[in-house]
Amino acid sequence: MQVKRKICVVVTARPSYSRVKTLLTAIENHNDLELKLVVAGSALLELYGNAVQVIENDGFKIDAKVYNVLVVENETAMAKTTSMAIMELSNVFYNMKPDAILTIADRYETIGTSIAAAYQNIPLIHLQGGEVTGNIDEKVRHANTKLADIHFVSSLPSMVRVLKMGENPKFVFNTGCPSLDLAAEILDNPDLDFDPIKKYGGVGADLDISNGYLIVMQHPETNEYKNARKHIVETLEVIRELKIPTLWFWPNVDAGSDATSSGIRHYRETYDLSHVHFFKNMAPMDFLRLLYNSKGLIGNSSAGIRECAFLGVHAVNIGKRQEGRDRGKNVIDADYNRKEIKQAILKQINSELPERDFIYGKGDSGVKIANILAEIELPYSKILQY
Amino acid sequence: MQVKRKICVVVTARPSYSRVKTLLTAIENHNDLELKLVVAGSALLELYGNAVQVIENDGFKIDAKVYNVLVVENETAMAKTTSMAIMELSNVFYNMKPDAILTIADRYETIGTSIAAAYQNIPLIHLQGGEVTGNIDEKVRHANTKLADIHFVSSLPSMVRVLKMGENPKFVFNTGCPSLDLAAEILDNPDLDFDPIKKYGGVGADLDISNGYLIVMQHPETNEYKNARKHIVETLEVIRELKIPTLWFWPNVDAGSDATSSGIRHYRETYDLSHVHFFKNMAPMDFLRLLYNSKGLIGNSSAGIRECAFLGVHAVNIGKRQEGRDRGKNVIDADYNRKEIKQAILKQINSELPERDFIYGKGDSGVKIANILAEIELPYSKILQY
Amino acid sequence: MQVKRKICVVVTARPSYSRVKTLLTAIENHNDLELKLVVAGSALLELYGNAVQVIENDGFKIDAKVYNVLVVENETAMAKTTSMAIMELSNVFYNMKPDAILTIADRYETIGTSIAAAYQNIPLIHLQGGEVTGNIDEKVRHANTKLADIHFVSSLPSMVRVLKMGENPKFVFNTGCPSLDLAAEILDNPDLDFDPIKKYGGVGADLDISNGYLIVMQHPETNEYKNARKHIVETLEVIRELKIPTLWFWPNVDAGSDATSSGIRHYRETYDLSHVHFFKNMAPMDFLRLLYNSKGLIGNSSAGIRECAFLGVHAVNIGKRQEGRDRGKNVIDADYNRKEIKQAILKQINSELPERDFIYGKGDSGVKIANILAEIELPYSKILQY
Amino acid sequence: MQVKRKICVVVTARPSYSRVKTLLTAIENHNDLELKLVVAGSALLELYGNAVQVIENDGFKIDAKVYNVLVVENETAMAKTTSMAIMELSNVFYNMKPDAILTIADRYETIGTSIAAAYQNIPLIHLQGGEVTGNIDEKVRHANTKLADIHFVSSLPSMVRVLKMGENPKFVFNTGCPSLDLAAEILDNPDLDFDPIKKYGGVGADLDISNGYLIVMQHPETNEYKNARKHIVETLEVIRELKIPTLWFWPNVDAGSDATSSGIRHYRETYDLSHVHFFKNMAPMDFLRLLYNSKGLIGNSSAGIRECAFLGVHAVNIGKRQEGRDRGKNVIDADYNRKEIKQAILKQINSELPERDFIYGKGDSGVKIANILAEIELPYSKILQY
Repeated sequence: MQVKRKICVVVTARPSYSRVKTLLTAIENHNDLELKLVVAGSALLELYGNAVQVIENDGFKIDAKVYNVLVVENETAMAKTTSMAIMELSNVFYNMKPDAILTIADRYETIGTSIAAAYQNIPLIHLQGGEVTGNIDEKVRHANTKLADIHFVSSLPSMVRVLKMGENPKFVFNTGCPSLDLAAEILDNPDLDFDPIKKYGGVGADLDISNGYLIVMQHPETNEYKNARKHIVETLEVIRELKIPTLWFWPNVDAGSDATSSGIRHYRETYDLSHVHFFKNMAPMDFLRLLYNSKGLIGNSSAGIRECAFLGVHAVNIGKRQEGRDRGKNVIDADYNRKEIKQAILKQINSELPERDFIYGKGDSGVKIANILAEIELPYSKILQY
Repeated sequence: MQVKRKICVVVTARPSYSRVKTLLTAIENHNDLELKLVVAGSALLELYGNAVQVIENDGFKIDAKVYNVLVVENETAMAKTTSMAIMELSNVFYNMKPDAILTIADRYETIGTSIAAAYQNIPLIHLQGGEVTGNIDEKVRHANTKLADIHFVSSLPSMVRVLKMGENPKFVFNTGCPSLDLAAEILDNPDLDFDPIKKYGGVGADLDISNGYLIVMQHPETNEYKNARKHIVETLEVIRELKIPTLWFWPNVDAGSDATSSGIRHYRETYDLSHVHFFKNMAPMDFLRLLYNSKGLIGNSSAGIRECAFLGVHAVNIGKRQEGRDRGKNVIDADYNRKEIKQAILKQINSELPERDFIYGKGDSGVKIANILAEIELPYSKILQY
Repeated sequence: MQVKRKICVVVTARPSYSRVKTLLTAIENHNDLELKLVVAGSALLELYGNAVQVIENDGFKIDAKVYNVLVVENETAMAKTTSMAIMELSNVFYNMKPDAILTIADRYETIGTSIAAAYQNIPLIHLQGGEVTGNIDEKVRHANTKLADIHFVSSLPSMVRVLKMGENPKFVFNTGCPSLDLAAEILDNPDLDFDPIKKYGGVGADLDISNGYLIVMQHPETNEYKNARKHIVETLEVIRELKIPTLWFWPNVDAGSDATSSGIRHYRETYDLSHVHFFKNMAPMDFLRLLYNSKGLIGNSSAGIRECAFLGVHAVNIGKRQEGRDRGKNVIDADYNRKEIKQAILKQINSELPERDFIYGKGDSGVKIANILAEIELPYSKILQY
Repeated sequence: MQVKRKICVVVTARPSYSRVKTLLTAIENHNDLELKLVVAGSALLELYGNAVQVIENDGFKIDAKVYNVLVVENETAMAKTTSMAIMELSNVFYNMKPDAILTIADRYETIGTSIAAAYQNIPLIHLQGGEVTGNIDEKVRHANTKLADIHFVSSLPSMVRVLKMGENPKFVFNTGCPSLDLAAEILDNPDLDFDPIKKYGGVGADLDISNGYLIVMQHPETNEYKNARKHIVETLEVIRELKIPTLWFWPNVDAGSDATSSGIRHYRETYDLSHVHFFKNMAPMDFLRLLYNSKGLIGNSSAGIRECAFLGVHAVNIGKRQEGRDRGKNVIDADYNRKEIKQAILKQINSELPERDFIYGKGDSGVKIANILAEIELPYSKILQY
């Protein structure tokens, strides 16, 4: 009897979970793989959307939880949160003895997973390397690439960049982004089959969204968190003026998220936002359905670039957070500037739906990755290819 | 009046100090720079050569010390030592507020300096990127490159590799390795002007080294620490057989160093090594003088590749620790195999001295780097160049 | 010339600062003492009142800041916050080399100061030992006593208890609580000379407080944080019904503070609290003046027990947080029960002002303590007295 | 069906394991208890005797291992090792969810177990409180008492002291020391049935011990580690002069242990110690048998006070490490002074064997404690009894 390969996935934030959900399922379903799931960081916190609850409701068994998030009011806290991730994940991995560990994308704490794995000679798998965004994410993502042994990237340009950085072609795979697998699932029956306000509560008036609605999801940009409040006000102004029913998602944990959040709170107390409803979080499938049926996504979430491209949904992408990311025809870029943002939204909602674009994969990434993980050699040492 | 730029250098190990000593002096002497010196990790420990004592004796003022080294018997300890480096250096940097921070080369804990700087938006300078060695050092070095904003490399091939990895040419400088600055200093008067055993004590018989001597410096290879004992015995056998007076330096802190050290200790108790004297450490200038006057360096230290090339001294390089590093004509490579090692030594001591080779610089790197640091823009954000 | 004794005080929270402010001044003013001030924990965070800003505005120089507070949604975070306090304070103390270190009272993270001092053989001074409260504070306070070498207690019964626990009478002093020194300062001119809403902002309507007002300050009880929401609603109900202008202070950082805070927020959105104004924090002197001129303090803050006794102000003390603390005639105790709370408030505001009570000292503790610290032997080792 | 109570025991050092071995067995064997075993600290390290190997050889299943020991060359390392214990044990306990946690005695890192348990509201059991020794152990032991909810003490005087410190009599039990349970086991057949040198290797010549031998076990005293070397030389001198075959055990991990160890190593290189054999560690049962058959134990180990009293074996107790501990008639105390030590040894080996003394229990503590743990209420909150 063959022993199953133990693949340990570390989820440290709500959006990361959405990206790997179908991969988790594919690993669980694979005959030759065993899933070990670690939930850490903001994914454990109610304050940041209680992803752990969603994960458990989805039926996944969590093998270890790691609390390591400092109150984030400056960048020092980000470094220390990462420090704690290394310390505790080292211990979790040591006791768990997985055959390989998967770290996701480029959030600052993901390098904690990478170091805890690489330093203990455990093969490290990196998801979504090779993208280009600027900011601290940029440094973290490429450092993750240099610590990782195996790379699953989301697009052809990303694959080219990972190879240029000197990685071994034998271990770089363009499998597309598993977050689109979820998007693919809703396409059979894409109707909005739930009432988001009834199901998710949140803050703000009950809205009639039957004639269409916008979605806003805007995070602070790490390196400019002092401007976070100014930035968010630009978007708030536009949404207030447009008077279109709007579903707004609170930002996730980053230096500055408090400035963004409190910017929103203060604005609400001063101005009329009775056509806006605020949510903390949403099950991924529900969010995708919501996206699919919306007039468009406003903000700087990667969903505008990835899921919206795949689903054929308009997206106004604000600021520099997604700078450098390859994008489909569904996106209009705008600066943190109310005029630009408003023009972009108006142009989109008055034009036809964009075509679907498969630059980030075809919706079958989870299974693809699991199949590769079951077969591939698992090294923990490598050398620059030039 | 112009405020001096505060350049914080973090020294975490004895060999790292040797590499930056002249740079520290050059920063101190520069009118527009102020040196902030942090000593951490094994550099503080008597067990690993008490580098801090040497640093203080050399007249440098230490601004902060950070104890963070776990007892290293497995790789988990390396990850946790690094975790502590991040946590404490974050705090040190936060309170110190330097204009830029310099991290050295590729020891595992150096990524702690890099993360503590990068995550706090402090410009990060990396010394000696772009080299190729394999092992965990390889991952750490290139991850440091991806976290760093400014790069001072030691050789042209290294510069090419750093640029290929996508760094901005504006911030990559081939200044040579500052460790050679020290080597350059002794060339005016290179005689062995001290008795190493009298001056440094150590363990073993008093030796007559007036007719020449070998030097051994062999560290465990991190990824194979279970073989460390087997490896060291090969070298011990050769040295025992050759009967040439030999000055042997204990290994530094790495997973496996205890296996190497205890291998040496057990061997000494069983076999006659009366022609071998063991040292824990030595002031860099004394070591260079010792090197210059030796019949050759045996082991896997980078000194065989760098300093010996510059000085024109034979070096037998054993195993894979220096694999991939550009080398001059002074080096013969050998596997962890007593026959190969012995042949290589005999061939060298029976041939002429090798010519000096300047692949790692001309001995003026410290001043070059300080001059650049005084003038250059200090960014803390960057983007892949492709 | 005599070298001044370096006394390091570690302030980890807003209320701790209020307790030691006059002591800090007395140390600074003493010819034989030098103040070293470390600010850590929630005292650095805006989320918990930004005490660090107040400290700097008061003119104190801060020698080191230490960020170590995890997002607190469960008790695990409290343990880890304490862990980080030990790690970083160890390093701060090691580099600072104070002659003695002072830890304050019984918040969970204060044991971090105690361990970092005691383990490094630095004499440890504990303020406010010997009190009795139950909860985790109880364990922490007495553990601090057992780690400390010198004890300054606030009342005679506390002194008796510290001695009973086996401490050396030579090092136990009943100096009273230095927080009352501030209270003593306002007595010369106790008028409310500022408009709290204008000066401190906060949330809620502008209030006319010229005809009197209540103050509420209610923290979650650590060991029952799941009940925190239920508890706070009882008080909210009473305040709503009474319709008396009320100044309400947000709770500080503890497991459960989010439940309390969100309890308040939700209540405000549902019910009319237009006669209540919410504050995050206030300069100690302003708060004392506010207290002095109020109809009474409601909640479970120690200010009801200490400052209100000294000033002669009514206090309704709710629940078990202050259980076991010696109290003066100004206090009526009530359970977390709207009926009991309401009756207690009504009884107090309809009766005369209580007499001043000096069980916690006479308002000269800071100077007393500084004088003792300048003279006393500073041991770092001790032995049980029985 | 009743659910078994999960009792988590944290073993952080070799001597602690010896103390609880029979308790571990008794918990495992009890129908209503389930053992959860965590091994941490120096118990994991080869350098300190590889207790983990012994534990596994004894057939115990280890639920989690935690690496947290810094290289100990000063007291800062002790504080940081403790910090890491808190951080990682918090996480282990959080994921394990035991019904109660047991911390052992008074080593500095044991307070890590106490804080991780107490702060997470998990009932804390303390073994061997109430003893009196001075040094940092003294502070740690009593702080453990104040953090613990349930106390199992080793002697009547200890019980009296714990009660005097204000603990609730309902939760204080004098069960004797479980280390004596092991000693009781060998009494049926106490012959030395193995050759210690053959079985355990170690360093030094093969010895003929058939005509009797001494045992030495001397640890550095934490608060005076700079004197550790001087102290050990006094004992070395005596042992050298006596020429009696001697079995010497290396010291365990504490600040100064390197000074002690290197003191021994240097002494061996200079003087003739051919009648001395050095051991790193020994299985507890073998050590007890060795003790029972020896001429006496020299040094400052607690075994001289406890096991030797119970077994009726001479002990010369040196220095202050055991100061304050209740002792039987088998002990002669000596200062760190070669003359005193020599006189004491000579007096003992020339007199009759001492009588057995049961001040530390009758050899049935493990079962007694397990039975109580199965029945007793398990609180996690308490209040001073006066």
